[in-house]
Amino acid sequence: MAVSKKKIVLIGAGNVGHHLGHRFFEKGMSITQVFSRKITKARKLAKAINAEAINDLSLLQQNADLYIIAVHDDAIASVAAQVASILKDKLVVHTSGSAPSTLLKPFFKNYGCFYPLQTFSINKKVDFDQLPLCIYSPQKRNRTKLHHYASSICPNIFEINDHQKSVLHVAAVFTNNFSNHLFHIAKKITETEGISFDILKPLMLETVLKIQHNHPKDMQTGPAIRGDQKTIERHLKLIENNPDWVQLYKLLSEGIQKI
Amino acid sequence: MAVSKKKIVLIGAGNVGHHLGHRFFEKGMSITQVFSRKITKARKLAKAINAEAINDLSLLQQNADLYIIAVHDDAIASVAAQVASILKDKLVVHTSGSAPSTLLKPFFKNYGCFYPLQTFSINKKVDFDQLPLCIYSPQKRNRTKLHHYASSICPNIFEINDHQKSVLHVAAVFTNNFSNHLFHIAKKITETEGISFDILKPLMLETVLKIQHNHPKDMQTGPAIRGDQKTIERHLKLIENNPDWVQLYKLLSEGIQKI
Repeated sequence: MAVSKKKIVLIGAGNVGHHLGHRFFEKGMSITQVFSRKITKARKLAKAINAEAINDLSLLQQNADLYIIAVHDDAIASVAAQVASILKDKLVVHTSGSAPSTLLKPFFKNYGCFYPLQTFSINKKVDFDQLPLCIYSPQKRNRTKLHHYASSICPNIFEINDHQKSVLHVAAVFTNNFSNHLFHIAKKITETEGISFDILKPLMLETVLKIQHNHPKDMQTGPAIRGDQKTIERHLKLIENNPDWVQLYKLLSEGIQKI
Repeated sequence: MAVSKKKIVLIGAGNVGHHLGHRFFEKGMSITQVFSRKITKARKLAKAINAEAINDLSLLQQNADLYIIAVHDDAIASVAAQVASILKDKLVVHTSGSAPSTLLKPFFKNYGCFYPLQTFSINKKVDFDQLPLCIYSPQKRNRTKLHHYASSICPNIFEINDHQKSVLHVAAVFTNNFSNHLFHIAKKITETEGISFDILKPLMLETVLKIQHNHPKDMQTGPAIRGDQKTIERHLKLIENNPDWVQLYKLLSEGIQKI
């Protein structure tokens, strides 16, 4: 498949749409149209990647080869319903990490997922050479197509079915959402004492760098794994004003002691 | 103070002793003696940094300028007691993140802390140009001395008193120990489904890179912060076989929803 000649339409110009659009464009792929409910948002992205901007789904081009729905999880079904009659035979994918591909099944014959597993911020360039791009379609021919599109922008492609993706998404929540919350707590703890949170940043970075090549289990340190009950009690005393932190500290320490 | 002429004795040749010893040596400082209960361990480090190796505390050199006790937290007091009579007027510090400087008070006139805030592994080089080195002594003259020693090996020096250090240590536990445990859980979750943990590593790295220059609070994403109860319930169902994970998932999600 000469994927570079294929036309792609982006439905959604948020974080994921923005970064996917730019990446496809940089790799010489044709994004022909960008939809966003906010026309200024659609225009901003469309202009940067040489596409047409629309804010009305009835104006969708009907001759594209791939339609990527990159909207909030809870808007996917409603967007799909609105374009079902126009795109019923087209290949339509969504980029959600938590929704299954089958969310699109009532609306399209050819559907799938195109999920870049990364945390996106609009202002920070995403390294598509590093991130894993998870693709799936229940139909083999569509998986092959998606593989071609994916490989034009990313070297790390994983075929991940709906069940695997939902499991992966829970794991991603532990990895990203929950660790970020721990960092938030650490910031609160230090700042209450007038200590700069910056002092913890090298530790934070090293924690993650170490397990790029080691099992987290083997890298576990601290009072819990040492069974150092005296330190644990001193720590609990220091955070006793925040019962949520106390409960979390206890639960995580117990978890560590069971590994 | 011509700190490069000063003599330093290292009591302990574990992770911290190893890395401190190598760093002082690389920066042209004189480590004259290394103690470890295991003479092979003492010899290995001593040989690399051109020092004398001992495994008997009564053989400690008495003419050094700084004695660094880098042993496990629960061994500090006992080591200090054993060398108290020999070193009573000497400047003696420990490298613990959780013990206060005053742990050394019963034994020495001049005492303090010399705490590199980082997670150390014996086989991984430590970047002393990045880590924060926390120093403290209740005596101003000793703080000044420690500052000189510290600045010879590290550009980021923080004077952190005992109370601040204990608070910082709790925060470091949240930052490193607890996030590492979350990564361990994520690994378990993915591997149960035959998915490689490697797929999550770029996400892990990006999570931490993002908050080098942003507040964790502003970087929080995921179902909890979105109030996406449907996804939360689907996730809880997926991990229902592990009640500890369920409890942790709920507690962390509640915490995120309160920020």
